[in-house]
Amino acid sequence: MKGSNMKIINLVHLSANPALPEVQEAMIEVIKNNYGNPSSQHSMGDAAATALEAARDSVSALINCQVSKEIVFTSGGTESVNHAVKGVAFAKADKGKHIITSCIEHSSVIRSANRLKLFGFSVTSLPVDKYGMVDPAEVEAAIQDDTILISIMHSNNEIGTIQPIKEIGKIAKERRVLFHSDAVDSVGVIPVDVQDLDVDLLSFSSNPYYGPSGAGGLYIKRGTAVWPLFDGGVQENNKRAGTENMIGIVGMGKAAEIAKRDMDKRIAHSKRLKDKFLRDLPAYLDEYILNGHPEMSLPNHISISLKYIEGESVVLMLDEEGIAVSTRSACAAGSLRASQVLLAIAHEFADAQGTMVITFGMDNTEEDVDRLLKALKHTVVSLREISPLYKK
Amino acid sequence: MKGSNMKIINLVHLSANPALPEVQEAMIEVIKNNYGNPSSQHSMGDAAATALEAARDSVSALINCQVSKEIVFTSGGTESVNHAVKGVAFAKADKGKHIITSCIEHSSVIRSANRLKLFGFSVTSLPVDKYGMVDPAEVEAAIQDDTILISIMHSNNEIGTIQPIKEIGKIAKERRVLFHSDAVDSVGVIPVDVQDLDVDLLSFSSNPYYGPSGAGGLYIKRGTAVWPLFDGGVQENNKRAGTENMIGIVGMGKAAEIAKRDMDKRIAHSKRLKDKFLRDLPAYLDEYILNGHPEMSLPNHISISLKYIEGESVVLMLDEEGIAVSTRSACAAGSLRASQVLLAIAHEFADAQGTMVITFGMDNTEEDVDRLLKALKHTVVSLREISPLYKK
Repeated sequence: MKGSNMKIINLVHLSANPALPEVQEAMIEVIKNNYGNPSSQHSMGDAAATALEAARDSVSALINCQVSKEIVFTSGGTESVNHAVKGVAFAKADKGKHIITSCIEHSSVIRSANRLKLFGFSVTSLPVDKYGMVDPAEVEAAIQDDTILISIMHSNNEIGTIQPIKEIGKIAKERRVLFHSDAVDSVGVIPVDVQDLDVDLLSFSSNPYYGPSGAGGLYIKRGTAVWPLFDGGVQENNKRAGTENMIGIVGMGKAAEIAKRDMDKRIAHSKRLKDKFLRDLPAYLDEYILNGHPEMSLPNHISISLKYIEGESVVLMLDEEGIAVSTRSACAAGSLRASQVLLAIAHEFADAQGTMVITFGMDNTEEDVDRLLKALKHTVVSLREISPLYKK
Repeated sequence: MKGSNMKIINLVHLSANPALPEVQEAMIEVIKNNYGNPSSQHSMGDAAATALEAARDSVSALINCQVSKEIVFTSGGTESVNHAVKGVAFAKADKGKHIITSCIEHSSVIRSANRLKLFGFSVTSLPVDKYGMVDPAEVEAAIQDDTILISIMHSNNEIGTIQPIKEIGKIAKERRVLFHSDAVDSVGVIPVDVQDLDVDLLSFSSNPYYGPSGAGGLYIKRGTAVWPLFDGGVQENNKRAGTENMIGIVGMGKAAEIAKRDMDKRIAHSKRLKDKFLRDLPAYLDEYILNGHPEMSLPNHISISLKYIEGESVVLMLDEEGIAVSTRSACAAGSLRASQVLLAIAHEFADAQGTMVITFGMDNTEEDVDRLLKALKHTVVSLREISPLYKK
């Protein structure tokens, strides 16, 4: 069907969200008006400086900062996470070199922590239960005298499970350990309130809430000492050197403003499609595993492991039908290893390989769900027929 | 005059270049077509992946890479420099911990090197002559057994002097020391050929050649081991994790393509305006110092120190006349210290404070130069009249 006029159904909203029309317009205005450099001394930079701070205000309001200066604009979630994890580690190294994280974090957290091991840091990687949930009691038990950082993600990009961040935040505060949460898949999608959660640092990006990719931010609670990842100029209140990506930042600010306004409506829309999919699924397919927590889960996210087949083949066959789904994080798409997250929730290797991830967005309809279910049935039946693992 | 209909004269092209119409169009197309994620498994990401590699080819051609994979896209010059300097240092730390650089580097190099001192690295900061030129013989003399990196900028953003990079590259190659050049103000402005220069790493951004800000690149010669600055996903051939800023990258690719095509024409245009300014200047002003090398200098760049007055006041008064100039790098604009570069070329502190930088672009005309000279005369005379340092 590829190449025909059939509507492409986008079910990969966590990795490739279309920018909203208002976000597009805001970015096009930056491009056409040729904004100057916000750090300039002359007035050519004034419009840029004003737009920069307006975007900071919108993003700050979205996650309820105390002051907008707590937001540092970055090139995306990966930079934010690297800045937070490495920045705290190096700033606190004289106090201790132990970090607590979980085995289901995004590769940017896991690999930043691994990088720090080369600098003498030790890392406790907590296990998760069968829903991919971290136990706050295990976080508390893992705290040592030399623990300087806890980094637990807000929600998981592969299975959608939302972690008990508020409980962990309370423990971190009581035990005086800095707490970072990678909230890339949550911010702008579900309510995230940095003050209520008691986090010291929180990473996020712009694309999950219909902003541009390549734009993100890091919340750093006022007074928290963190080394910059970029040394150089005095931009971003001395926390992140380098001339700003004004197009991306303005787009992100507009997306944040709309995400705050429309969040309830978006959640209700996604929830309706997710419920329909899960309700109708048994009529189309058998022998699958639903991944992630049944309630504490992103409203727009579904992960299923389809037994006896490979997720990669499902992606390619659905793609032929004009339906875009994924097997896992786009960040890991070039890597051939089985998902650590799925292995962590006690999946057999073979089942982990058969995983498909769907993330809904505002452009999806109930008809899309019907088309997906029909195409999925056809795909799974065809693939199982040729699978050596499947016995009818 | 501010707020009137008089044309604003932009003479700050190194820090705030307007994107070319073709570059604007290319970026708007990315925005409107809602390109997917180039790392996606499904075909929604195909257009993005194709556009990403086309941009890499254009940038690669601009600086004459052997293969386009030698280009890593970054969020700008500052990220590129941090990646190069810290990435080489940490990758080579077991071979040695000595770095050679110069006292006139951009703050991103100087502060990255200072950061590395906290990790036990030692840094030799070479002096410069009165034109701001590094002596290759001094570079050679500074090489120790444990020297792992030489980082010398291609051209200086404050005084325009172009360094003898090819000579230094030859020395670095012979002595088997990795060589990085911060070429942010040169790439796309004057010819830069990474193979001819014998550099192992070269940092650049997009704005100096009429591309967007917040987009840049790092050339890493094939086979050079460098630690990433961003750990995480497998993007950019495993050298820089994180979802790409497609808007910025596509804009940068288009700007690179046009810069290569129009470079000679642009150099001739800038050179004509620069020559006119320098030829006519003595008829308008006295008691000034021209900074930088008389020949080995960026064709679009002029730096003058105006005795007895403050550069900041000149910027503000010319701004009132609708003319944008700067005193120094926009990256340092929020900082109140005197320019290290000007102090390094043996200026008195007071003279360094009276410095004005002009950078020409394709939108400037000979009439702009006349208007600037007239406004400058008026400004300097007024300021000197109230200066306690000036004696008639």
